Amino acid sequence: MGEAPAPAHVDIEELLRGYDVDDLTVATVCSHTSLQIFHGARKEGYKTLGICLGPQPRFYEAFPRAAPDAFLSIERYTDLLRLEQQLRAQNVVVIPTGSIVEYLGADNFLRLRVPTFGNRKVLQWESDRARQREWLDRAGIPMPRLLPDPAQIDRPVFVKLHGAKGGRGAFIAKNSAEYYKVNPQVPHTIQEYVVGTRYYLHFFYSPLSDVGYRCSRGTLQLLGLDRRDESNVDEMYKLGAQEVLRDLGIYPSFVVTGNIPVVLRESLLPKVFAMGEAVVETALDLFGGMIGPFCLETIVTDKLEFRVFEISSRIVAGTNLYTTGSPYADYLADDLSTGRRIAQELRAAASKGKLASVLS
Amino acid sequence: MGEAPAPAHVDIEELLRGYDVDDLTVATVCSHTSLQIFHGARKEGYKTLGICLGPQPRFYEAFPRAAPDAFLSIERYTDLLRLEQQLRAQNVVVIPTGSIVEYLGADNFLRLRVPTFGNRKVLQWESDRARQREWLDRAGIPMPRLLPDPAQIDRPVFVKLHGAKGGRGAFIAKNSAEYYKVNPQVPHTIQEYVVGTRYYLHFFYSPLSDVGYRCSRGTLQLLGLDRRDESNVDEMYKLGAQEVLRDLGIYPSFVVTGNIPVVLRESLLPKVFAMGEAVVETALDLFGGMIGPFCLETIVTDKLEFRVFEISSRIVAGTNLYTTGSPYADYLADDLSTGRRIAQELRAAASKGKLASVLS
Amino acid sequence: MGEAPAPAHVDIEELLRGYDVDDLTVATVCSHTSLQIFHGARKEGYKTLGICLGPQPRFYEAFPRAAPDAFLSIERYTDLLRLEQQLRAQNVVVIPTGSIVEYLGADNFLRLRVPTFGNRKVLQWESDRARQREWLDRAGIPMPRLLPDPAQIDRPVFVKLHGAKGGRGAFIAKNSAEYYKVNPQVPHTIQEYVVGTRYYLHFFYSPLSDVGYRCSRGTLQLLGLDRRDESNVDEMYKLGAQEVLRDLGIYPSFVVTGNIPVVLRESLLPKVFAMGEAVVETALDLFGGMIGPFCLETIVTDKLEFRVFEISSRIVAGTNLYTTGSPYADYLADDLSTGRRIAQELRAAASKGKLASVLS
Repeated sequence: MGEAPAPAHVDIEELLRGYDVDDLTVATVCSHTSLQIFHGARKEGYKTLGICLGPQPRFYEAFPRAAPDAFLSIERYTDLLRLEQQLRAQNVVVIPTGSIVEYLGADNFLRLRVPTFGNRKVLQWESDRARQREWLDRAGIPMPRLLPDPAQIDRPVFVKLHGAKGGRGAFIAKNSAEYYKVNPQVPHTIQEYVVGTRYYLHFFYSPLSDVGYRCSRGTLQLLGLDRRDESNVDEMYKLGAQEVLRDLGIYPSFVVTGNIPVVLRESLLPKVFAMGEAVVETALDLFGGMIGPFCLETIVTDKLEFRVFEISSRIVAGTNLYTTGSPYADYLADDLSTGRRIAQELRAAASKGKLASVLS
Repeated sequence: MGEAPAPAHVDIEELLRGYDVDDLTVATVCSHTSLQIFHGARKEGYKTLGICLGPQPRFYEAFPRAAPDAFLSIERYTDLLRLEQQLRAQNVVVIPTGSIVEYLGADNFLRLRVPTFGNRKVLQWESDRARQREWLDRAGIPMPRLLPDPAQIDRPVFVKLHGAKGGRGAFIAKNSAEYYKVNPQVPHTIQEYVVGTRYYLHFFYSPLSDVGYRCSRGTLQLLGLDRRDESNVDEMYKLGAQEVLRDLGIYPSFVVTGNIPVVLRESLLPKVFAMGEAVVETALDLFGGMIGPFCLETIVTDKLEFRVFEISSRIVAGTNLYTTGSPYADYLADDLSTGRRIAQELRAAASKGKLASVLS
Repeated sequence: MGEAPAPAHVDIEELLRGYDVDDLTVATVCSHTSLQIFHGARKEGYKTLGICLGPQPRFYEAFPRAAPDAFLSIERYTDLLRLEQQLRAQNVVVIPTGSIVEYLGADNFLRLRVPTFGNRKVLQWESDRARQREWLDRAGIPMPRLLPDPAQIDRPVFVKLHGAKGGRGAFIAKNSAEYYKVNPQVPHTIQEYVVGTRYYLHFFYSPLSDVGYRCSRGTLQLLGLDRRDESNVDEMYKLGAQEVLRDLGIYPSFVVTGNIPVVLRESLLPKVFAMGEAVVETALDLFGGMIGPFCLETIVTDKLEFRVFEISSRIVAGTNLYTTGSPYADYLADDLSTGRRIAQELRAAASKGKLASVLS
């Protein structure tokens, strides 16, 4: 599947030199899961910094417990590269989210000389669909089948455009003819459409904690799960059959607009943890491991089998449902969001003198 | 768009004369959001009164924390007009809900000589579809387009009957022919059918509080959001395509039976508050403002644009999901329902000697 | 409708002889709702025992507050029959779930000489579709109509195979022809397909408590409600119309994979409790009563009428949504799951010397 791009030349030990590890500032971009991240960081006693384009967003006024202590207003995200020293002087740790990676660009994010929660190398395996599949394949994770040749589509398929944000441009084709009607001219993936119900599993992997499902070098927790709510596919059925709507120029689209809470049949939990563990162990082998929150995006078929159609190796927006706990996190601790769990991991690492082991 | 009907002749200062403002009784009709309202009022130390038709409903026995302290059994809702003095003698403040307005009738509600939470004048702008549209239009709120001429339906439309409760009689037409098949003979609105995912935004506007998104004369909070669950449209797809079911005499209907929790993509929050603020400011201009809970009922398209198809200017049933907090309210305070927030506003107003500013 | 099978010859007073009623161990099979049951039992101060096939499941490591104190590893569920004395020596009370009844078999479960929460006799009325219908009919519960003759199917029907687990094999037919295409050769029920929205009502009936909706000999509570999430019917609409998918060999299936939270229109609560009460009272008449959690599985039509398509007379998996409370349970007590409510009932019964009245 080709080689990984050259690793980013960020030496975390060097970046942390001069840091007051008991006085970190937790920073993230003012979007995606920022309320939860600031809220959680504050509960663990951290200062917080909101990175925003232009003037500071006013919506935090309505959520005083989740507003950052300060804002860093920039004109474009690449300004962050100029401000590295200033950020380090404030002992900043950046919490990566889908927004920061998207806005800054993967390359810039990888070379940002500011300590970042988690292992940035994961991005090299996650952002490329072929490499992501290699990772999950090696872990033995069941995935929807690829159908590389459009001429040989023998079942309904889901076609995803590479690098497209939040489902944009994705489409369903029930056969080759339907595929050729769209005939996408950008790189894309054709995979079988798996019929079933979707569960987005919110994991947290800690290299330090003893509390959780024990893996070879750390522990795994399940902090919650959600279902993504996509416009327009999740409500277009109300208007009529897709086959009829098509003639009106209305096609299903898959843009994430929100999230719905859900719990999973308990007898599926052993499989959930087996999958999570396999992904974690393979990450250790391939690129030194994945730290903190990640999400397996799954479909459960009517045979009660999982198919994983994607992995997100950082905090996902579905965790926004669980500001002060979830049906799963409540079995671990009171008042535990994924945002807070991140801050706890920072606190635990700092107190053990192992901050470098959870940052990159 | 015509003139507003003559304002109700209720002088709130006069009504409050003789009130012991530290000993209010919070009253509402035993339906809709009454559990939440009583529960919240009690948490803030208020006595509560449940207004019911006939014998007191037994279901409160199962919810002791949310049962009113006393019941007022009446034979018909208009009996309330006879009982005004008795209610005022108990320092009653009525919390309006969809039930009380529907059962009492808008005119009777407007002239009820008992202090009522919020500004009753809003009803004159909300209950008439044309005036509601004028209000939202002036506020710059994006709405589904109107298609006044049935002969010129050039896209799927949603047809709503005026004054119909909870979606009754509403129907979808994909073209003029489908419209004429139903051909409603009562006043109705034809608007484009916007395809997307629905979010019902639970706002709370306070003219008194400093905590919240700052508007010109008060602050705005977002206490939660939900999706309405409508029978039969939300599950009829399981039976087959609408186009086939039609031949069996089964048509989609839109009667609200419940609510489902949901969170919104965080990057949409700036738009949420901008819309909320615009509605609040325009309400101040048009009729002296809207106080307390209100709801924008929205659709988010796959372009991540909002369309607001309705405003409810009082507590909505979707808040029943959040008895002891929501993913949004938890960023404001512990254990905060919209029912409790109403009681807090009463408490704050009373303590500042400004009760008249939140009642009408 | 025929006679009930001979009652199980378990004398609960005899089984409890020698029990230290202040030192019970709460046991259940490691599946279904076990996390919630162990979590709740522990909150009420009980020891807990997880019954599992083979080695102890590892997933409890991730949920330390919900892990049992000890495991009992067995090779097959019928081993429990051999271990009765050992279980009684530990003062074990078994909490029945769908899993334990399914794995052990109804007959074995009925004769298991270990105290079991609730009245086991209910199983004889619940597990047979005809007897279940007799019970609900006598209670005056509105149900979907039966259409015994496939040749006379005059409306859409839902066909359920007897004894099938979790919806397996069930199918929809819009007319006789569609029925005969499947033509099931195993015992099955044909009932009208009721179009509407589904609500699964989580009741708890206590013969001991004063807190709740008062029935003739005890009280009824509503601890929550959910909607079942079924694969593939709940998401197959995204792929296209059923009528088209059928030609691709894709049919709706009804296998439960999870649960979604929901609240019900408040004005329906009187009907909810009236139905719950009727089922409880009829159970008292028919077989001495039903104790503890049960669930009415309902559809609400667009006329706001309930249809009950099934009763489950024990804890249902939808309660897993409400680990630390629900929008309804929060009106009763803090931090109340159905699992915890069971443990509270045990505690209350033990303290009153009436353990035998909630066990069988």
